[in-house]
Amino acid sequence: MFKARLADPKILKYSIDAVSNMIDEAGVSVTKDGLRLKAMDPAHVALVDLELKKEAFDEFEVEEPLVLGIDLERLNTILKRAGTDQILIQLDSENNVLKIRFKNSSTRTFDLPLIEVSEEELKVPNLDFPSQIEIPPKILSESIKDAEIVSDHVTLMVDEENLFISAKGDLGNVEVKVPKDEAKSFEVSKSCRSMFSLEYLKDMIKASDIADSVKIYLGDNIPVRMDFTTENARLSFLLAPRIESE
Amino acid sequence: MFKARLADPKILKYSIDAVSNMIDEAGVSVTKDGLRLKAMDPAHVALVDLELKKEAFDEFEVEEPLVLGIDLERLNTILKRAGTDQILIQLDSENNVLKIRFKNSSTRTFDLPLIEVSEEELKVPNLDFPSQIEIPPKILSESIKDAEIVSDHVTLMVDEENLFISAKGDLGNVEVKVPKDEAKSFEVSKSCRSMFSLEYLKDMIKASDIADSVKIYLGDNIPVRMDFTTENARLSFLLAPRIESE
Amino acid sequence: MFKARLADPKILKYSIDAVSNMIDEAGVSVTKDGLRLKAMDPAHVALVDLELKKEAFDEFEVEEPLVLGIDLERLNTILKRAGTDQILIQLDSENNVLKIRFKNSSTRTFDLPLIEVSEEELKVPNLDFPSQIEIPPKILSESIKDAEIVSDHVTLMVDEENLFISAKGDLGNVEVKVPKDEAKSFEVSKSCRSMFSLEYLKDMIKASDIADSVKIYLGDNIPVRMDFTTENARLSFLLAPRIESE
Repeated sequence: MFKARLADPKILKYSIDAVSNMIDEAGVSVTKDGLRLKAMDPAHVALVDLELKKEAFDEFEVEEPLVLGIDLERLNTILKRAGTDQILIQLDSENNVLKIRFKNSSTRTFDLPLIEVSEEELKVPNLDFPSQIEIPPKILSESIKDAEIVSDHVTLMVDEENLFISAKGDLGNVEVKVPKDEAKSFEVSKSCRSMFSLEYLKDMIKASDIADSVKIYLGDNIPVRMDFTTENARLSFLLAPRIESE
Repeated sequence: MFKARLADPKILKYSIDAVSNMIDEAGVSVTKDGLRLKAMDPAHVALVDLELKKEAFDEFEVEEPLVLGIDLERLNTILKRAGTDQILIQLDSENNVLKIRFKNSSTRTFDLPLIEVSEEELKVPNLDFPSQIEIPPKILSESIKDAEIVSDHVTLMVDEENLFISAKGDLGNVEVKVPKDEAKSFEVSKSCRSMFSLEYLKDMIKASDIADSVKIYLGDNIPVRMDFTTENARLSFLLAPRIESE
Repeated sequence: MFKARLADPKILKYSIDAVSNMIDEAGVSVTKDGLRLKAMDPAHVALVDLELKKEAFDEFEVEEPLVLGIDLERLNTILKRAGTDQILIQLDSENNVLKIRFKNSSTRTFDLPLIEVSEEELKVPNLDFPSQIEIPPKILSESIKDAEIVSDHVTLMVDEENLFISAKGDLGNVEVKVPKDEAKSFEVSKSCRSMFSLEYLKDMIKASDIADSVKIYLGDNIPVRMDFTTENARLSFLLAPRIESE
């Protein structure tokens, strides 16, 4: 038995929208603490970890822990139909579907067939990040869009004073400098830099619409972790670096 | 002689926009009561009946009944240029054109050449509908858009308590339930159901933007009639059913 | 040395957007009076003359007159990233790039590599226009869009009472009449008319967004000059006529 109700569909809608750009299908764990989705993109370059706490829901009931195999693109198509209606989610285990219901003057019910997914839990690598910087998500998303006009990859860099987001291309260079003072938190034990593909970052910054802040964990030529967080939800990405050839 | 003036172009613009998606050209009858356009789509699946009463206009003068052969797509292109300007329509019978004039600080005049159309009046079949339900147009248009994400056809169903709009597809099912209490009127003499092509319904629901209400006339495997109405205008569609193969 | 600052990027953004549709690259003259860009389109049908006075900037410093070779499409792409941030422009002559900087909480710097352009000054032909009419830009831009629905060219005509903008096509005619009283100024020494390609006019009217007024200089089968002006900026176009074949 699993049943949940969301008075405001925004968090669920935007989270799934950001995730479904990268991941086609995933196993969603349902426990008494809430929903959790961990998955890698097909090319194994990015890892997604979405947590929607029980508190993000207005009602949340589950008898015993479950894993629901979800076609994320399909779920996203359904959630896009939500408008501002409240959402009811209910597992119909007999028919192996998730019933997603939008309710105001009419009741609109979508059956989402569950799919089979491996129940093996994805191991999130334990990385040691020398730098952790928290900034408003809009600064990150604008920087990524700036970088796009000259290149298909971007370098993230920190020193003791600034975060730099920069890109170089035949048609010119772009550099965004975010001074320490504009960051919500700024912990840098040593200067470091890594380069990343814009293709993935472009998808990841879609999460900016929901988050109050994004925390960037950076090191030297190691993956970057980005945590988009709100009070009751967290969407984390781990993105492998590109090797710089210069 | 025919002359009409509309201070607010909205009704004319939106009606022609909804109709011109389905019908390329049509004869528009002009009488002292107003305008009337009856036509079938080229595939003879849908019949359109548009009535703009004299009262919808701020001025309306016609000497004797006329039939104007109109290229609806062309008229629609012209009306899209209207903005919020008042519209003057005048028949120039010498040149066989309809002069459509938008007036504010400048005067913009479009000549719409009249075309030849059969003057034979289209017979609207007289059907006996066991159910008549009136709902806000938005409920219908949202349901049609819901159905689209899983199928290319939709089933309309009524019983004594509810109107159901549902669709089934490989990727899941959708069902919208509109309870009796949410309907503006609900007359159901017996349960009935028919299936329809979404291709046509998608065009028809464009009329939702003008109407205060839509009345749905439904039976068992017979055409559905949908009347979108405002105070001085009515846009009716009659749509042939698809045969259910199950 | 050249340095300029714009608290409001709008004028620069919109001017370059209008110009870059027609002209790929150009030499921009920088003098103590401001910026000046004169260029012809590749087909030599239209001539653009953009003047941004020193007063349009909040800071404007230049040591000696310069000509900057600019890839306008590239500059336009950068300026589209500006948002409402203030813009700082600085010549980095060592690296032969123009540094364009947007500043609010972060500092976003774009390097625009300068290109080589002929420093020969473009001669603007000295034409004698029998008519000069000044109107709100919106009237012109709406008329051009009206004309587009029937033709790919348009006739501009004036007599003692009105400006006419008209187009004829197989699918109907369009005529926009702007009476003398609606013009901001209306000096017509004799009736005259010329025909022009809509392809160019469509690009030119993008300047309508910034201008408070457009002054149209018209003659008989000679180029038309259109000056879009604001307090501290002027964007002039000179467009060759099409020969009427009737």
